[in-house]
Amino acid sequence: MSDSEKKVPEVVIKRLPRYYRYLGELLKQGITRISSNALSDKMNVTASQIRQDFNYFGGFGQQGYGYNVEHLYNEMGDILGLHDNDTMIIVGAGNLGRALANHNPFLKRGFKLVGIFDNDEKVIGSVINGMKVLSVDELESFMSKNRVDIGILTVPKSAVYETAERLAKSGIKGLLNFAYTELDLPKEIAVENVHMSDALMILAYNIHRDE
Amino acid sequence: MSDSEKKVPEVVIKRLPRYYRYLGELLKQGITRISSNALSDKMNVTASQIRQDFNYFGGFGQQGYGYNVEHLYNEMGDILGLHDNDTMIIVGAGNLGRALANHNPFLKRGFKLVGIFDNDEKVIGSVINGMKVLSVDELESFMSKNRVDIGILTVPKSAVYETAERLAKSGIKGLLNFAYTELDLPKEIAVENVHMSDALMILAYNIHRDE
Repeated sequence: MSDSEKKVPEVVIKRLPRYYRYLGELLKQGITRISSNALSDKMNVTASQIRQDFNYFGGFGQQGYGYNVEHLYNEMGDILGLHDNDTMIIVGAGNLGRALANHNPFLKRGFKLVGIFDNDEKVIGSVINGMKVLSVDELESFMSKNRVDIGILTVPKSAVYETAERLAKSGIKGLLNFAYTELDLPKEIAVENVHMSDALMILAYNIHRDE
Repeated sequence: MSDSEKKVPEVVIKRLPRYYRYLGELLKQGITRISSNALSDKMNVTASQIRQDFNYFGGFGQQGYGYNVEHLYNEMGDILGLHDNDTMIIVGAGNLGRALANHNPFLKRGFKLVGIFDNDEKVIGSVINGMKVLSVDELESFMSKNRVDIGILTVPKSAVYETAERLAKSGIKGLLNFAYTELDLPKEIAVENVHMSDALMILAYNIHRDE
């Protein structure tokens, strides 16, 4: 990894999945080349911001010639690590865990679900998307036998720290946390917190701001 | 609404739910007063950024004296529109719709679920969290008889535009879209897109960046 890559600001990183998504939609529409101006219109980011963002990763385009959509899409996927076939487990097989086990955008991005865990006797052994739910008691032994890169935490808030620590000790690389709390872990472990209610609150703000 | 409020940048708005969440956690811990420095440590935002953010809404604190946590929590809830008892419906009663119907952080923030809709004969009439699932055919008549502020869209991507347009015509104020597409609607309707796979991609980026 180069030094320049280290300096990518978090706001830029947060835009990468959006670029990837838009480029995928352009590809589907059969668009092979796009200018930063046209991309800017679609993405609600200025063209100069787009060029600046892309420069963190070496540019991708030629002045006045536009970007090759497929190339840019693949490069963006590379940068995001989508071609590394990361494996993931879901801990918490409630409604949200079930929804995520079947969530197409996860699977289509190259992530592979390898296990689902729960602590409820009534749920353990049931089958979700062709996969048997295992007991959380088996987490450590499963992790020792299988390569698991990402843990998706859909356990209740009260269980999230203990679960995260067990996964951390077992060598997980990253956690996607859906519990309504910020998860602070040793720096070696990447954490993304998904707070669905934050989006709802921002929506409420925008609704009432216009009143 | 004052002119100054109009100018609140989107990045600041996006931080408001986080402030609200942290302040709620502080309250639970019995902390009644906090300095912007201490809040800064917890939130990973500089103290001057916090003061700047709060200044968009009139400040809330006295120099050298810190913030009254409960007051700030309530003010933040007011700004976010959480005390307006917004009503919401869920369209799409699959796993994700079910998960959201039971999602505590939604309900605890003061949002009230008033209806769940689906187009699947096998799902219509079933009961989720004490509420009977209605047919999407009834959307318009339901909207004409009930106050509905927010529509949560957990329908497949292929159905999201049609559903959004029907809700828009029926007077919805805001939409929380979980389909993997950006939803562009007339400006009168607020839209928040929740892309759970964006978080997964950012996680993958952070995992592979450290390799």
